[in-house]
Amino acid sequence: MSTPMQKPTVVYGRPVNVDGVPNLYSGTEVQPWTAPQPGIDNLGISSIDTFAVPGVGEYTVPFEGYVRVVRSEPTATEWANAEVYTNLIEMRMSGNSPELGEITVTLNPDCLSAGQIRTPFDPYAGEGPSAKACRMAVGAIFAMPKLGVHLINKEPIILTIDDVRQIPPAGSPGKGQVYRMLPLHDIRRPDDEPVAYVTSLRFTMGGYLTREQLS
Amino acid sequence: MSTPMQKPTVVYGRPVNVDGVPNLYSGTEVQPWTAPQPGIDNLGISSIDTFAVPGVGEYTVPFEGYVRVVRSEPTATEWANAEVYTNLIEMRMSGNSPELGEITVTLNPDCLSAGQIRTPFDPYAGEGPSAKACRMAVGAIFAMPKLGVHLINKEPIILTIDDVRQIPPAGSPGKGQVYRMLPLHDIRRPDDEPVAYVTSLRFTMGGYLTREQLS
Repeated sequence: MSTPMQKPTVVYGRPVNVDGVPNLYSGTEVQPWTAPQPGIDNLGISSIDTFAVPGVGEYTVPFEGYVRVVRSEPTATEWANAEVYTNLIEMRMSGNSPELGEITVTLNPDCLSAGQIRTPFDPYAGEGPSAKACRMAVGAIFAMPKLGVHLINKEPIILTIDDVRQIPPAGSPGKGQVYRMLPLHDIRRPDDEPVAYVTSLRFTMGGYLTREQLS
Repeated sequence: MSTPMQKPTVVYGRPVNVDGVPNLYSGTEVQPWTAPQPGIDNLGISSIDTFAVPGVGEYTVPFEGYVRVVRSEPTATEWANAEVYTNLIEMRMSGNSPELGEITVTLNPDCLSAGQIRTPFDPYAGEGPSAKACRMAVGAIFAMPKLGVHLINKEPIILTIDDVRQIPPAGSPGKGQVYRMLPLHDIRRPDDEPVAYVTSLRFTMGGYLTREQLS
């Protein structure tokens, strides 16, 4: 399995070192309230995205697939002060819609999709340790062969997970922070009008996958 | 007054032609429910931004200044179907905080800050014409001389105005769609940890300014 890492021209956050970082698969133990050593998390993901095509309609499509996320060394050993930086180094989700056909979502290699896990500035009140907030700014390609287009976003899709009590936040629900509409452009004509919009995106991080489940 | 337009490496939306487009100043008449001819709107703006500096504190700073926005030809003559594309070609806002000192916000010339005005896919129900939604993805530089830093955002700040009944939406309140925190990086060390975060941003578009008010 290769890691497609051409030099991106758009960097949405902090780059994270990948060299020598171990791949983590099914069977990896996760400790709550603990900032783990660097790793590449190979995780399942599911998502329900709504696309609006101007003058045509809105279509809600369920997706299933996987992501590979490299995590940095935590900035502190204790949970409360630990920040972890992340890069999405691979993504592959597939969905199907009667109108839009088969859709495959992968990373846009022109963008470094980057994020972090840290304690929010308005943490949840309550007893015990504070949950963290996870965010990732993503540049994607939506391949829609039935329509003969590859769509890209030119502003990142901000994926967020709240109430993070373990790293990685496997099993947690998350949201794409789309305000009304996020434009998608034809990769061949990125300066033209948007072809479609993402109007809603909800996802759930899955657990660790086996090596075989990623191929 | 010059228009600083070095070739940006990051393009957050659709580029809009500036050549030959007239500057519009104080005295320009605005018609509601009407998509006007292309123009460069020279408008006042005020904003209240909250910055969080990890381990130091949160600071809310009021800003005043101006923006220059170039608008495209509308895609249709009638209001309902007209979409208008916009680029922020200049911005200058100043604020002051006892802790952070003087702050000046300008455009990051490395980014093309771009947006659009269109009917949302979930328009307001009601009688009469539909209000439009305005959005702009912005790359900015926050100069903080007291702290000796220039901070940049590496994912765009999404500025939105709802209930747009005229173009430009002068006088309308707007919001920066910041989910919990938007990282700001030192322009000299953009790959390092964020130095600060924007945690809240609310703004109000002002009216047309005179030529003199922009200098």
